[in-house]
Amino acid sequence: MEGEPTLRLRIFDLNCWAIRYLSKRRQERIGLIGDALRRDSFDLVLLQEVWSEQDYSELAVKLAGCYPFSHYFRSGIIGSGLCVFSRFPILDTLLYQYSLNGYPYMLQHGDWFCGKSVGVGLEVTAPLLSLSVQLHAEYCREKDAYLPHRLVQAWELAQFIRHTSKAADVVLLGGDLNMHPEDVGIRLLRGWTGLQDAFAEAACFEGCKNGCTLVPDNCFTEQSELQPFPLGIRIDYILYKAISSFTVKCEELKTTTGPAPGTDIPFSDHEAVMATLHIQRQGQPGGATLGTAELADVVTEARTEVGVGLRAAQRQRYSSGRMAVLALLLLLLQAAAALGTLAGLGAEQPFPKLSFCLLAFLALGVLVLATGLHLFHTMEVKMLHGTEDQMRMALRALQEHP
Amino acid sequence: MEGEPTLRLRIFDLNCWAIRYLSKRRQERIGLIGDALRRDSFDLVLLQEVWSEQDYSELAVKLAGCYPFSHYFRSGIIGSGLCVFSRFPILDTLLYQYSLNGYPYMLQHGDWFCGKSVGVGLEVTAPLLSLSVQLHAEYCREKDAYLPHRLVQAWELAQFIRHTSKAADVVLLGGDLNMHPEDVGIRLLRGWTGLQDAFAEAACFEGCKNGCTLVPDNCFTEQSELQPFPLGIRIDYILYKAISSFTVKCEELKTTTGPAPGTDIPFSDHEAVMATLHIQRQGQPGGATLGTAELADVVTEARTEVGVGLRAAQRQRYSSGRMAVLALLLLLLQAAAALGTLAGLGAEQPFPKLSFCLLAFLALGVLVLATGLHLFHTMEVKMLHGTEDQMRMALRALQEHP
Repeated sequence: MEGEPTLRLRIFDLNCWAIRYLSKRRQERIGLIGDALRRDSFDLVLLQEVWSEQDYSELAVKLAGCYPFSHYFRSGIIGSGLCVFSRFPILDTLLYQYSLNGYPYMLQHGDWFCGKSVGVGLEVTAPLLSLSVQLHAEYCREKDAYLPHRLVQAWELAQFIRHTSKAADVVLLGGDLNMHPEDVGIRLLRGWTGLQDAFAEAACFEGCKNGCTLVPDNCFTEQSELQPFPLGIRIDYILYKAISSFTVKCEELKTTTGPAPGTDIPFSDHEAVMATLHIQRQGQPGGATLGTAELADVVTEARTEVGVGLRAAQRQRYSSGRMAVLALLLLLLQAAAALGTLAGLGAEQPFPKLSFCLLAFLALGVLVLATGLHLFHTMEVKMLHGTEDQMRMALRALQEHP
Repeated sequence: MEGEPTLRLRIFDLNCWAIRYLSKRRQERIGLIGDALRRDSFDLVLLQEVWSEQDYSELAVKLAGCYPFSHYFRSGIIGSGLCVFSRFPILDTLLYQYSLNGYPYMLQHGDWFCGKSVGVGLEVTAPLLSLSVQLHAEYCREKDAYLPHRLVQAWELAQFIRHTSKAADVVLLGGDLNMHPEDVGIRLLRGWTGLQDAFAEAACFEGCKNGCTLVPDNCFTEQSELQPFPLGIRIDYILYKAISSFTVKCEELKTTTGPAPGTDIPFSDHEAVMATLHIQRQGQPGGATLGTAELADVVTEARTEVGVGLRAAQRQRYSSGRMAVLALLLLLLQAAAALGTLAGLGAEQPFPKLSFCLLAFLALGVLVLATGLHLFHTMEVKMLHGTEDQMRMALRALQEHP
C-alpha cells in the first residue's frame, strides 16, 4: 500500500463443498465457480473445502490469467481443503494446524482426517495478512460435543493472529467458522483480536436475509439440519482489522442467492460472501474493540466451556484406560488357562479351541482399541488443559494490565 | 527495554533428560538443577525434556522466589517437555507443534509420542520473544532416516520465527536442536531467520572444548553414540537476533563441565549452556546475514533432502497400500471359502476351523496395521510436499526480490 493513499479490495470467500465421490455435481460446480471468478474479477479469493488437489489444479489453470498467484495448503490425511487465489503476489505462506480437531473414531464426522488448519498468505500489497480458515463443524446444536474443540480452535486462531499480525497493516480473514454470530467462539475470536465483522460494518448489503450463508432455499442444503433455523444461519464470515495507521471500511457486502447465473444449481451448499473494502492510509486504526471487562467476560465464558470439555475428556480417558486394563486381565487369564491345559490340568474335558481363539481375538481387539483411545484422550486432556492455562494467563494479564 | 539504554540478560539452557522410570537418578538431578538455578540467579531459564509435569511443579515451587514467572507447555501424548522460568513477567505464550515428528511405530525412538514443539514465551522486558525448542533426535548419523523430518521442523521453526517476531525487539532461542553446527538444518534455520550463534559470537568462552554439549566425559552419555566424535558434539544452542534499533552482543558463553558442584553427578546427559547477552538500544541491527546466493544454496540443499524424504515416504505409502489391498483380498477369499462351506460345497472334507480362524485374525491384523501405515504415510507425503512447495516459493521470492 506504499504510495497509494487509498485502495479498494474485492474479496470472495466460499466453502466449496467439493468432497470427491460425496458432494453432488462437484465438477460441474467447480467449473461454475471458476467461470464466475474469471468473469467477475476479485483481488483475493479464499476457498475452503477444496478437498481434491485436482480440483485446485483445474481452478489454478483456469484462473491463471486473472489470478496469477495461488496456493494450496496441504495438511492432514485428506488435506486442509484451503486455497487462496490472488491478483497480488503471495510472498509467503504458513499453515497452522489446530491441536484438537474432533475424534478419529467419529468416521461419519470426518473432521479429524482433514487436518483443519489456518492457511496464511502474505500478500505483497504490502503487508496484507490474509487468512483462509475453517473450524470444526457443528453437528448438533442442542448437544454440541465438539464445542470445546471448536473453542480451542477459536482461541488458537485468535492467538495465532495476534502473534503473526504485528507487522501487518491489514489483516483479512475469510472462512467457514461454523459458529453463529453471537456464539462464544466468535465473540472470543473477535474480542481477542479486534477483528471486525464485514456484515455488521457494511455500508450497503445485498443478499440472503441477515447475511445467512446456509439457507433452506439452497437445493444442496440438508433441510433437516436447518429445522431449528427456518431462515438459515450465518456461519461464513469475512473479518478484517486495520493495524498501524490505516483505516478499513466495508463499502459493500454481498452473498450469492440461489442458482449461479445461467444454470439451475448454486456454487455450493454454502452461499459465497463477497466484500468490497476501502483501505486508507490515515487516522487511527478504527474498530470498536471490546472493553477489558467485556473481554474478560468472554474469555471466562470460553474457559468454562473448555473446562467442561476437559472434564469430559478426563472421564473418557479414565474409562478407556479401565477398559484396556480389563482386556489385558482377560488375556492374562486366558494365557493362564492355556498354560494350565498344556500342563495337563483339566485334561479330562476337551479344550474349546475355537471359542478360546475367538475370545482371545476379541480381547486383543478391545485392548488395542482401548489403548488407542486412552492415548488419544490423554492428548486431548493435555491440549484442553493447556488452553485453559493460556486463558487463565490471559485473564490475569487483563486484570493486571487492562 | 523502554527507558533502559542497556540491559544485561543471563540465560540458562539445558536438556534435562528427565524421563520418568528411564532416566537415571532423575529426581536427584532435578533437585540439583533447582538448587543451582536458585543459587546462581539467571534472568531466563529454558529447559527441555522435563517430561513429567510433577518435576516441573517441584521446580516451580522451589524457584518461585527468584523466578516468579514460569510456564509448562503441554502437547502430544507424553508432553512437549518444554518449560520456561523467568524473572520477568511472561505476557503470553504460544505453542507450535511441528507437522512431522518421526513415526508412531518406531517405539524405541519415542519422538512421535512427545509432540515436539516450539514453546514461545513473550516477556514483558518488552518485547522479548523467547523460544524454547527441541527438534527430532538423530539416531544414526550415517543413515539418518529422520533427516527430512528434522529439516521440515527446522523450516517450520524458521518460518514460525519470521512470522511471529516482527514486532519483537530481540528474539532468543535456546534448545536442543539435535544438529551439528555445520548441518544443513542449522544453516537453513540461521540463514532464513538471521539468528546468530552465541558460541560463535561470544567475546569470552569457558567450558567444554568447542562448546560441545554432549561429551564423552559425562557419565550418563552412551559412549557408543559418541564413537564417531571422540571429542563430543555441539547440539544445544543459544541463538539470538536483534530487530529494529537494538544491538545484541554475547559477552560470555559457558557450558557446564562434569559433575554439579558438591556432588558426583552432572545435571543431565547434556551439558547446560549459559549466555550473558548485552542488549543496547542504538545503531543498526547487527548480524552478518547470509547473502542471497548463499541463502538460496542452503534452501536448495534443504529442498533436495526434503525431496529425498518425499520419495521415500511415497514408496512407503505405496507398499503399505499394496499390503492392505492384499490383506483385504485374503479376507475376501476366506469369506468366499466360508460361504462355500456353508452352502455345502466340499462337505466331504472337514472344515479346518482353528487354522481358518487364525488366518482370518492374521489377515485382519495386517489389514488394520497396513491401513494405519498407509494413512500415516499419506499425511507424511502431504507435509513433505507442502514444505517442498514452500521452499520453492521461497527460492522464487529470493530470485525475484533479492
